[in-house]
Amino acid sequence: MNPIQLFDTESSTYTYILAAPGSDQAVIIDPVERHWERDLRHLERLNLKLAYILETHAHADHVTSAGKLREVTGAKACVPSGCGIPPADQQLSDGDVIRFGAGEEITVLHTPGHTAGSMSYLWRGNVFTGDTLLINGCGRTDFQSGSSDDLYDSVVGKLFTLPDATRMWPGHDYKDQAVSTIGWEKEHNARLAHKSKAEFAKIMSELNLPKPKLIDIAVPANQNLGLPHGA
Amino acid sequence: MNPIQLFDTESSTYTYILAAPGSDQAVIIDPVERHWERDLRHLERLNLKLAYILETHAHADHVTSAGKLREVTGAKACVPSGCGIPPADQQLSDGDVIRFGAGEEITVLHTPGHTAGSMSYLWRGNVFTGDTLLINGCGRTDFQSGSSDDLYDSVVGKLFTLPDATRMWPGHDYKDQAVSTIGWEKEHNARLAHKSKAEFAKIMSELNLPKPKLIDIAVPANQNLGLPHGA
Ligand SMILES: [Fe+2]
Ligand SMILES: [Fe+2]
Repeated sequence: MNPIQLFDTESSTYTYILAAPGSDQAVIIDPVERHWERDLRHLERLNLKLAYILETHAHADHVTSAGKLREVTGAKACVPSGCGIPPADQQLSDGDVIRFGAGEEITVLHTPGHTAGSMSYLWRGNVFTGDTLLINGCGRTDFQSGSSDDLYDSVVGKLFTLPDATRMWPGHDYKDQAVSTIGWEKEHNARLAHKSKAEFAKIMSELNLPKPKLIDIAVPANQNLGLPHGA
Repeated sequence: MNPIQLFDTESSTYTYILAAPGSDQAVIIDPVERHWERDLRHLERLNLKLAYILETHAHADHVTSAGKLREVTGAKACVPSGCGIPPADQQLSDGDVIRFGAGEEITVLHTPGHTAGSMSYLWRGNVFTGDTLLINGCGRTDFQSGSSDDLYDSVVGKLFTLPDATRMWPGHDYKDQAVSTIGWEKEHNARLAHKSKAEFAKIMSELNLPKPKLIDIAVPANQNLGLPHGA
């Protein structure tokens, strides 16, 4: 049971639609503001009703459409409790389970490191890792309470303990890679496979990435579910 | 059970990987030449072995990687019998069934109109329509033995008789639409929903599309599975 994977070419963000077999309910993960109408049309063509909108974290590189989609569909917006997103309907913690459709379950995994609040979501053998684990890479750890030690523990201590065949769907990809598996990442991920915590910390400390252009706009906006403040 | 949908930004072509649950076998539909390595890496990350390569037709707008993928993986290349692709391993006819994995079946539907040979493929409630039926549109019918009458019969008389919930995965999309359903297209497709054959013929005759830039290169190349002639 794969999700439907959608892409934003501006920020290279993946959005996922999870459709419950045997029901008309769906969940969307990390929807992007400028695609809210595209995503509504997807739901309409597939004859799906949106039950939940999930965020993996408060993004720094794009603005979410969670608030807009909630307004239009009545779906509940669920966010990591540690991300400072007060207007959400539900603040998620590690181990929480989101239920939708006919017996579908999404398990919430707290996977801090890219941001302190970051969550991954597990559904039917698929894990949605946001910016914690990327295909053959990982999210940066140098802002938003990021921590390379936490990210290492989240990936090596938690995500890599999932079954090898678990499909891994990232929050971004910049190389058209789309999907991987936990087994492949455990063996081949350039930053995390067969690395010690110290080796990983060194790799991350030497990245010297520029400050994301949108961070000062995107993070506050996302902490309000993408809606204008005061609106 | 959704396919994995991959995209070529140059020609807006969708490629699909169908993974058999409970086995490591996969099928790829309409792979694109310049992405053959990307697609091999997908199979590798997902730990899948390619059993079959399917073509929906001899494309005029991009070159297939079928020959290359066959060479590297040993998978069998299966093509519509009416498309003039002699080096394929299997010439498909309407009603043929392709079996892979643990009991997976792909049913072959002859859906002429965009080209005389065009086939659609049906798998687990998904139909892959190539350029016969596009989301809210359809393929052109003015070359490669195309026929608006045939396309109308293929879509209205055949594809529209599938269950409404059948997910419809097109060969191209130029508007980021990705996936639809037979039910939605039957009700809303701008060219084909609630139209008579004469109305549809009029729409198609007035399109006045330019000749595809690549047609004189792509069609002969695709009739050789994308391999150089004489190779
Ligand atoms: Fe992020
Ligand atoms: Fe075509």
